[in-house]
Amino acid sequence: MDKTVYFDNNATTRVAPEVRDVMLPFLDNLYGNPSSMHAFGGRVAKYVDRAREEVARFINCSPEEIIFTSCATESDNAAIRGTADWFGRDLKVITTAVEHPAVLQPVRRLKAQGHETVELPVNGIGQIDLEQLRAELASAKGPKLVSAMWANNETGTVFPIAKIAEICKEYGAVLHTDAVQAAGKAKIDVQAVPVDMLSISGHKFHAPKGIGFMFVRKGTKLKPFMLGGHQESGRRAGTENVPYIVGLAKACELARLGMADEEKKLTALRDRLEAGIVAKCPNVRVNGDRENRLPNTLNVSFEYIEGEAIAYHLSDLGICISTGSACASGSLDPSHVIRAMGVPFTAVHGSVRFSLSRYSTDEEVDYVLEKLPPVIANLRELSPFGPDKDVSTFK
Amino acid sequence: MDKTVYFDNNATTRVAPEVRDVMLPFLDNLYGNPSSMHAFGGRVAKYVDRAREEVARFINCSPEEIIFTSCATESDNAAIRGTADWFGRDLKVITTAVEHPAVLQPVRRLKAQGHETVELPVNGIGQIDLEQLRAELASAKGPKLVSAMWANNETGTVFPIAKIAEICKEYGAVLHTDAVQAAGKAKIDVQAVPVDMLSISGHKFHAPKGIGFMFVRKGTKLKPFMLGGHQESGRRAGTENVPYIVGLAKACELARLGMADEEKKLTALRDRLEAGIVAKCPNVRVNGDRENRLPNTLNVSFEYIEGEAIAYHLSDLGICISTGSACASGSLDPSHVIRAMGVPFTAVHGSVRFSLSRYSTDEEVDYVLEKLPPVIANLRELSPFGPDKDVSTFK
Repeated sequence: MDKTVYFDNNATTRVAPEVRDVMLPFLDNLYGNPSSMHAFGGRVAKYVDRAREEVARFINCSPEEIIFTSCATESDNAAIRGTADWFGRDLKVITTAVEHPAVLQPVRRLKAQGHETVELPVNGIGQIDLEQLRAELASAKGPKLVSAMWANNETGTVFPIAKIAEICKEYGAVLHTDAVQAAGKAKIDVQAVPVDMLSISGHKFHAPKGIGFMFVRKGTKLKPFMLGGHQESGRRAGTENVPYIVGLAKACELARLGMADEEKKLTALRDRLEAGIVAKCPNVRVNGDRENRLPNTLNVSFEYIEGEAIAYHLSDLGICISTGSACASGSLDPSHVIRAMGVPFTAVHGSVRFSLSRYSTDEEVDYVLEKLPPVIANLRELSPFGPDKDVSTFK
Repeated sequence: MDKTVYFDNNATTRVAPEVRDVMLPFLDNLYGNPSSMHAFGGRVAKYVDRAREEVARFINCSPEEIIFTSCATESDNAAIRGTADWFGRDLKVITTAVEHPAVLQPVRRLKAQGHETVELPVNGIGQIDLEQLRAELASAKGPKLVSAMWANNETGTVFPIAKIAEICKEYGAVLHTDAVQAAGKAKIDVQAVPVDMLSISGHKFHAPKGIGFMFVRKGTKLKPFMLGGHQESGRRAGTENVPYIVGLAKACELARLGMADEEKKLTALRDRLEAGIVAKCPNVRVNGDRENRLPNTLNVSFEYIEGEAIAYHLSDLGICISTGSACASGSLDPSHVIRAMGVPFTAVHGSVRFSLSRYSTDEEVDYVLEKLPPVIANLRELSPFGPDKDVSTFK
């Protein structure tokens, strides 16, 4: 199978050739340590400074508010646990049931350590109830941290993050947002949307895996997560990953300049894929908030069959999709996001995600629309369950 | 200044061309997420598996005992704080006064959180007193963690880690070692030296900055530091940095195959540099344990002058050295390592480190031996202090 249709871009993306090219000198002669006092290191430090400015431009903040990290998982841990380290046990932590494990797991550890934590439920399209958020904030006596994602990795559902920020301000809560899936697909402007902290990962928008950053608004109360040297103004120890930092900045620049066009292109491709699947496959359900959704993401439940089986059969045909977060793989439980949305049990196991990128093409959509329906039909044939079959033992 | 003599390899090293070359396909077509269920991701996962085997071979452990991290700072934090998270406040933590900040800072945070901690002092050549270690272990009632580095980053002093491991076993203490500076310069065999945990950073031996690993012996009690997805068998969340993991494995292979030859070469170069400096510059003191020292490292105190001034002047001549850890830069305090060794106050400020690598040459040593003595003589001329001058205000 030489053909590869890569529709799993919410799991990871191809490194843009422009990104790779700017990194190469730093894997060659420009290997100095930016923290060194000699000119050889200082020269490298200047590139890190310029990268920080470009990354800041991407989300409209000051360069001093950017902290480079090894990934968004680190950024999420640093934001949530660093806030808890600052405030201590009094901190109430409010998050949502559909967050990425990199948010949910740190929150659950805080719970185990005695913090009051809340995971807000979502409705059928994956949205939280803002009044419920308000009530949870109102009932907290001490400091409050809210961690709510900008856009969901599995369904593409975009939270009303501006409204959430407004409510947090009203109650004096610190707001962190995992913006990993929004980066490069939705405009992120931390002046327009006044979050306090924000996590981003490079490899979701064509930088390599192993680099991310966090935005920390000036004045935000936070203890460092990674302790050691003085790097990142004492806020994140560890020698700077210079090649990837420079690459990340290029990815931010490409996304900033290309986003308007890409959004149109991706929306058109995704909508055609969605319409084609709905037209060609019976008993299909589109998951998430179709009015407020990332342009590249399509999550579909094929009722009465297993998402894993669909993904494996498509993999044999060179089509890459997933059944949920790659970070949750290894587990056979159905996605916590789809379950939280109350998708019926006949559909929850058959949920798969198609996620496109700037490199996706019309031909690839055609190929999927040609190959997918027979796979679904065959699996339905083999399934002991179905609309006309006994579903009483399906769980 | 086009000439660069890079004698600051304990700060960071050039990425080996062989390392860069094996990474490039992963910055191009092999961009799948190793956690994905499709074949495109699975293909990448196989390379990660092979890399893990090569890294395990490097230190003679099982591949399941390797956890990839973003750097040694992360490995150190994960080892120390993960052990404390497992055992709770009862854990007594014993470390040494000359550790890297990536060990000292996590230990000091534990102290602030109520743990009993000890920083063992060192003698004039940077060695701890093993009887004192024994006494600290004997007086602990609950669980014990010892974190002692394999070799010191500033002086190259090698701790008797095998003896330390033996003592830790005797008292049932968990032993972590920061082996960052030993990697590629001293043989590391965790069967011969039974440490429980070990931290290594790629960029100190010709892999890029931003990748490291930790060895965690099977059965070691540890809670994960980075929380989120299921990566690294649930022990370190975050999408795998595949290009750098593959590069790190190549760096390990190169080090494993080349170490015997390199050790001879480095020792010869370093000893010639040392002898030349001692012969050409008066009032010089070689710091550290010359009998137990990394082959590439030379720490010298030039009395009555400032190390920063030496480093700046040499930088103008294209010679890169440092006054201590790059991780401690930004601070004007003299090195905590040199101070801990009780180096006299007339010498402590004038300490500089020369650190060589496999790419260092005889010509470079000649160049330094030609350029350094006049720099030292000039600075001494300008200095208000000296053996024949009043030193009462020197501090």
